[in-house]
Amino acid sequence: MSTLPVCQTLLLDMHNGVLHITLNRPDSRNAMNLQMVSELRAVLAAVHDERGVRALVVGGAGGHFCAGGDIKDMANARAQGPGAHRDLNRLFGALLQEVQHAPQVVITVLQGAVLGGGFGLACVSDIALADHQAQFGLPETSLGLLPAQIAPFVVQRIGLTLARRLALTAARFDGTQARRMGLVHFVEHDTQALAERLDEVLAHVLCCAPGANAATKKLLLASAVQPSDALLDEAAEWFSEAVTGVEGVEGTLAFVQKRKPGWAL
Amino acid sequence: MSTLPVCQTLLLDMHNGVLHITLNRPDSRNAMNLQMVSELRAVLAAVHDERGVRALVVGGAGGHFCAGGDIKDMANARAQGPGAHRDLNRLFGALLQEVQHAPQVVITVLQGAVLGGGFGLACVSDIALADHQAQFGLPETSLGLLPAQIAPFVVQRIGLTLARRLALTAARFDGTQARRMGLVHFVEHDTQALAERLDEVLAHVLCCAPGANAATKKLLLASAVQPSDALLDEAAEWFSEAVTGVEGVEGTLAFVQKRKPGWAL
Amino acid sequence: MSTLPVCQTLLLDMHNGVLHITLNRPDSRNAMNLQMVSELRAVLAAVHDERGVRALVVGGAGGHFCAGGDIKDMANARAQGPGAHRDLNRLFGALLQEVQHAPQVVITVLQGAVLGGGFGLACVSDIALADHQAQFGLPETSLGLLPAQIAPFVVQRIGLTLARRLALTAARFDGTQARRMGLVHFVEHDTQALAERLDEVLAHVLCCAPGANAATKKLLLASAVQPSDALLDEAAEWFSEAVTGVEGVEGTLAFVQKRKPGWAL
Repeated sequence: MSTLPVCQTLLLDMHNGVLHITLNRPDSRNAMNLQMVSELRAVLAAVHDERGVRALVVGGAGGHFCAGGDIKDMANARAQGPGAHRDLNRLFGALLQEVQHAPQVVITVLQGAVLGGGFGLACVSDIALADHQAQFGLPETSLGLLPAQIAPFVVQRIGLTLARRLALTAARFDGTQARRMGLVHFVEHDTQALAERLDEVLAHVLCCAPGANAATKKLLLASAVQPSDALLDEAAEWFSEAVTGVEGVEGTLAFVQKRKPGWAL
Repeated sequence: MSTLPVCQTLLLDMHNGVLHITLNRPDSRNAMNLQMVSELRAVLAAVHDERGVRALVVGGAGGHFCAGGDIKDMANARAQGPGAHRDLNRLFGALLQEVQHAPQVVITVLQGAVLGGGFGLACVSDIALADHQAQFGLPETSLGLLPAQIAPFVVQRIGLTLARRLALTAARFDGTQARRMGLVHFVEHDTQALAERLDEVLAHVLCCAPGANAATKKLLLASAVQPSDALLDEAAEWFSEAVTGVEGVEGTLAFVQKRKPGWAL
Repeated sequence: MSTLPVCQTLLLDMHNGVLHITLNRPDSRNAMNLQMVSELRAVLAAVHDERGVRALVVGGAGGHFCAGGDIKDMANARAQGPGAHRDLNRLFGALLQEVQHAPQVVITVLQGAVLGGGFGLACVSDIALADHQAQFGLPETSLGLLPAQIAPFVVQRIGLTLARRLALTAARFDGTQARRMGLVHFVEHDTQALAERLDEVLAHVLCCAPGANAATKKLLLASAVQPSDALLDEAAEWFSEAVTGVEGVEGTLAFVQKRKPGWAL
């Protein structure tokens, strides 16, 4: 596969088809600065076409996931004028879009602060695991600001009804409540339990064919509220390609032969 | 009313304005083959304009609802080339669209296997009742395939956040979890309780005017995320037609006279 | 600020930046007549551009929220012909759209009857508080009518899956179930607890900057299922305006100085 970029703000660890990415600015609770945004985008680009990289696990160093945007970048942008603010903000939105559409299964492991931009990252993951004491929140409007790039993904994640309450009251809530809201899929009570749940989830992901998963994820994201003729037509083409492709042949053969397919290690 | 088609794969039983449809291929856990798809579509077409048929109840014979697509059809299509796969797949999507838009209230009774295409059928029903031990799942990607015609309806049914976890891990879950996910409306612990719940639900449905219910269902399905001026304008026309129509006159008169309307048998 | 209109069907009480609106036709359980619709629209218009009015709290007099549309208006419209029904119906939809898009945070306090149009009003509030014994329902189809202007907002509020069951069975349910469905955000067991919850929610709302909240609400409502490039571009512009505006400067300065911002009274 192509070489992973050298990163200052991220720890990267690849094994067994899974790339573990650790946000690593523990002194600022892994606040998302411009460099971290660039490095994350470079990592996603490097693995985009590598079906051998089957899942991305994103966590944070030092007991926190991510406390939001970095204040220094905001101060620098202030010095450069309003266009700089817009561009900095939009870059973060581009990162969220790229994580959302990564062909790999993206798993977030959420501990400590999951605020602002960190909240946004959680919202674009395929599977989210949270510690029960993790602290979620959208503090932007209490600072006179907007969760501008984040709000659309929050609405998509948990629906308008919950999103409007959370965003308009700058509410804080913990992992247990995040599970009840449907923001995360699993909540655990300590680091050990989180690690075991991650292993279990990864085992399930690795039983699914990487190409089929990438195509299915694309299809899910393309699904609007009302399934359209055009989408279903396209999906039938994708199905046809899958069933006659290498994975489909191997998968159905393995099923008949009552054995595991090649990708289920 | 028009005659119901003669069916090999379905049992049909009509009484009291309700058509009970039983998927009847118990040897293959009611796997959906091409013939069953055709027969279901023919039944839907036959009752489409019959307001005297007020609800469709879909269940399965032999303790299962439907285990998904039929393997023999897949093998035949393989022999005929990729176009055949596409067409076979798309036909199933057409069935799901037609069930979704049936003017009648569609109720599914879910026991045993509710997999793949069976899962899809559950997702297009207006009211879903499940046994607590029913087994739901989207196994496609673990076979190297896509839940191609199903995924858009799953997203619409339970939202993107849950759909992406289920589809990308080929997760299995039971009726109790299906209730928690909002996939089904009621979960019961045995066949007797399921039958009683069905009776109760049907009694409520039969209190609603058949034409008003058909128009309301059309309106609900047309409702996108943001209610539009155009939709609300059209809805006002529909309201006007309803209120001055036979049902509206009878319904409001019955309300004033403190009696049951004619359709509430 | 501009003068509030004089109202016959509403009680208005403004204090501490919050306008309390009480639907006040207790003899008919606050049924929504044409005059009440007009007066509500006039009040919304009067405060639309007043950022000093930061929240609207809507409740009902006499232990009920709102029992739906007024029967006398329906009878009058019947005398005037079908066009009158359409126009009367559409006017109520216009009210729902205007409440939905009010720049203020809209809070509903739901007790007693929350039926038909009252249900619709609950669906367009940013934060909904319910008494556990409140009675919710969409009785329209049991009267041969459609929840024409309401259904699209119900789908947006609680999703298609729940909406189709409720609308097609004319189901009744209480505040506790409304909380479980995600229709309301909080459920309380008596008037005292409702009042305390309202105070708590208002305290949070008042910590958020009024302009930032108005812009965030607009953004949330514009968020379709799939966050688009165009929306994220526009959101970045709004962010830039907020961060360099009066609220953004005050908010970030207050944060650095570890003090409350000017709007958090």
